[in-house]
Amino acid sequence: MEFAVLNTDGAARAGRLELAHGAVDTPVFMPVGTYGSVKAMSPAELEEIGAEIVLGNTFHLWLRPGVEVIGAHYGLHRFMGWPKPILTDSGGFQVFSLESLRKVSEEGVKFASPINGDRLLLTPEESIRIQCALESDIAMVFDECTPHPATEKQAASSMGLSIRWAERSKREWERQPANANALFGIVQGSVYERLRDESLAALTDIGFDGYAIGGLAVGEPKETMFRILRHTAPQLPRAQPRYLMGVGTPEDIVAAVAAGIDMFDCVLPTRNARNGWLFTRWGDIRLRNARYRDDIRPIDESCLCYACRNFSRAYIQHLQRANEILGARLATLHNLFYYLTLMRELREAIAARRFDEYASRFASDRARLAAEKD
Amino acid sequence: MEFAVLNTDGAARAGRLELAHGAVDTPVFMPVGTYGSVKAMSPAELEEIGAEIVLGNTFHLWLRPGVEVIGAHYGLHRFMGWPKPILTDSGGFQVFSLESLRKVSEEGVKFASPINGDRLLLTPEESIRIQCALESDIAMVFDECTPHPATEKQAASSMGLSIRWAERSKREWERQPANANALFGIVQGSVYERLRDESLAALTDIGFDGYAIGGLAVGEPKETMFRILRHTAPQLPRAQPRYLMGVGTPEDIVAAVAAGIDMFDCVLPTRNARNGWLFTRWGDIRLRNARYRDDIRPIDESCLCYACRNFSRAYIQHLQRANEILGARLATLHNLFYYLTLMRELREAIAARRFDEYASRFASDRARLAAEKD
Repeated sequence: MEFAVLNTDGAARAGRLELAHGAVDTPVFMPVGTYGSVKAMSPAELEEIGAEIVLGNTFHLWLRPGVEVIGAHYGLHRFMGWPKPILTDSGGFQVFSLESLRKVSEEGVKFASPINGDRLLLTPEESIRIQCALESDIAMVFDECTPHPATEKQAASSMGLSIRWAERSKREWERQPANANALFGIVQGSVYERLRDESLAALTDIGFDGYAIGGLAVGEPKETMFRILRHTAPQLPRAQPRYLMGVGTPEDIVAAVAAGIDMFDCVLPTRNARNGWLFTRWGDIRLRNARYRDDIRPIDESCLCYACRNFSRAYIQHLQRANEILGARLATLHNLFYYLTLMRELREAIAARRFDEYASRFASDRARLAAEKD
Repeated sequence: MEFAVLNTDGAARAGRLELAHGAVDTPVFMPVGTYGSVKAMSPAELEEIGAEIVLGNTFHLWLRPGVEVIGAHYGLHRFMGWPKPILTDSGGFQVFSLESLRKVSEEGVKFASPINGDRLLLTPEESIRIQCALESDIAMVFDECTPHPATEKQAASSMGLSIRWAERSKREWERQPANANALFGIVQGSVYERLRDESLAALTDIGFDGYAIGGLAVGEPKETMFRILRHTAPQLPRAQPRYLMGVGTPEDIVAAVAAGIDMFDCVLPTRNARNGWLFTRWGDIRLRNARYRDDIRPIDESCLCYACRNFSRAYIQHLQRANEILGARLATLHNLFYYLTLMRELREAIAARRFDEYASRFASDRARLAAEKD
């Protein structure tokens, strides 16, 4: 892996990440492809709208279809027909969201498969082995995503476990046959600056190819998230990519780019699309609202995506109400096109050193639809 | 509308149908787009795989989103983003399948909307007005699809009603502002040759742009269907298009083309796709079978569709088991590609006067996968 920061504007950075399966321009948004498919999209469509990297979920793919099936295809890229880079999470976030079904120990997490009830054990070593079998371009350490709220004592204990698991992840990584892929560490520590600093120091001592901020956007207030983000992001190593996990709305992303973040993933554009929540330059549209029933305008007249070039709000609303697959497809395509266009414009604004100007125009544009409705 | 039979081979015909929104090569298969969308497909994909005409369901579109919404888009073509020809059924078949919810009289059919319970009345006149509002290239008369089994007396009475409704459909059609579209009659008469002859004679007296055979593939044995088809098809006017409604499997279509049919529609390729039933040149594949779990081969190595060029059986099975939309998409795309390829090959075989040779190779090819499994 190689990473170069090409332009900066304030704390915001535009860069280029060279990975085993291709190059990625940052700041970048990674569509989420949980089960080896970005929901409702084909790989050809992802390429067409300019996606350069997608995220795969280790936990889900491990359970279904299983590592041996993906291994028979020589990895996740060929299995899902996506030749470009893939980042995989470690499975930690998913296994911890099983709640009652799991038991955490120093060794790892025991849990019952939600697919068939099998008793399973996920450890840092197993997570890394799976991510290597998937041929992920960027693997993530196995960690505990500290839930919110947590006392400082709970957060410290959880963070300590994550550091020990990060060490074991790195050791297992080094035991794997030499590969061209990258391993990222994850800063934890909940809402406590002191713990975030401790976590980061321990991770940089171990040494990783990139650093993520985990454990945010897990239910804490927005201002708390940004307080921790603005505290932690500037301390992450400058020469390596910085990834804010699971974030977020367009507004969140613009603010995080301003704080120096390079990489994002989030289910919002895909999940919300299927529920009729559309993101546009002018604000969000709740497409199932009765006011759009006979609205013959496209979702956004200024948008160049396939959905906006060919179909009306009324048609896409109708498709979604009739539970037609094309309704989920067109809304997803539009939302991802919007997110990827936003990232491209952010990169261009940073390169032109017009980031602040871009961000304020972004904010006023995004308020327009809401103002019209008033 | 203009229609020319360009080639014949035995009773089989290859022709060209010029409609208000474009030309259609026959024999043709029309993918079914019930709610203004061929399930799981985009219009761009339909064009790519060579679809020249699709079918829309008057009954469904009348109830959802309603004629006024489609009218605001100047018709179904712009509403669904499909610039090529559309045939609409009359709504008769659907309203009769409501069973307990309906009441038939000379005037028409009273029923409760399955969407919201509204009391509605569908008549020949209303059906024609809706089809004209949809801007359908080919409208169908409103008729009663005689259920199977029916006594000869029941079938005669039902057929008589359909003839009176066909007359009313034609009169309402003539009252509409002049349009470039076509109106087809539908031969009924259940499994009784005498009634089929009577129905056809009455319809040709009224005079239509094309003639369909209805009331087949409604539960009668295959040999009965083919007995009626082979009795009726050759008597349909030679200079006009002949449409066999709701049929069928690839084998049914080849046999019906041999009997002189020009047009087909059926939900099999789309509906079966979503359940993992794939049609191929070499026979049918039940993709959810455990034997395909780690099968890295494409659905059909000889197929040139997007699904077969890029994805394995194992991957598509996995997508369908995980209920991923892409699983329905790829299977649908493949099945429709197969049906449309079959129709193209049938047209070419007729033009080359090699229809019998093609039909016997078709039969032996289609048996290959079953033979391999034994």
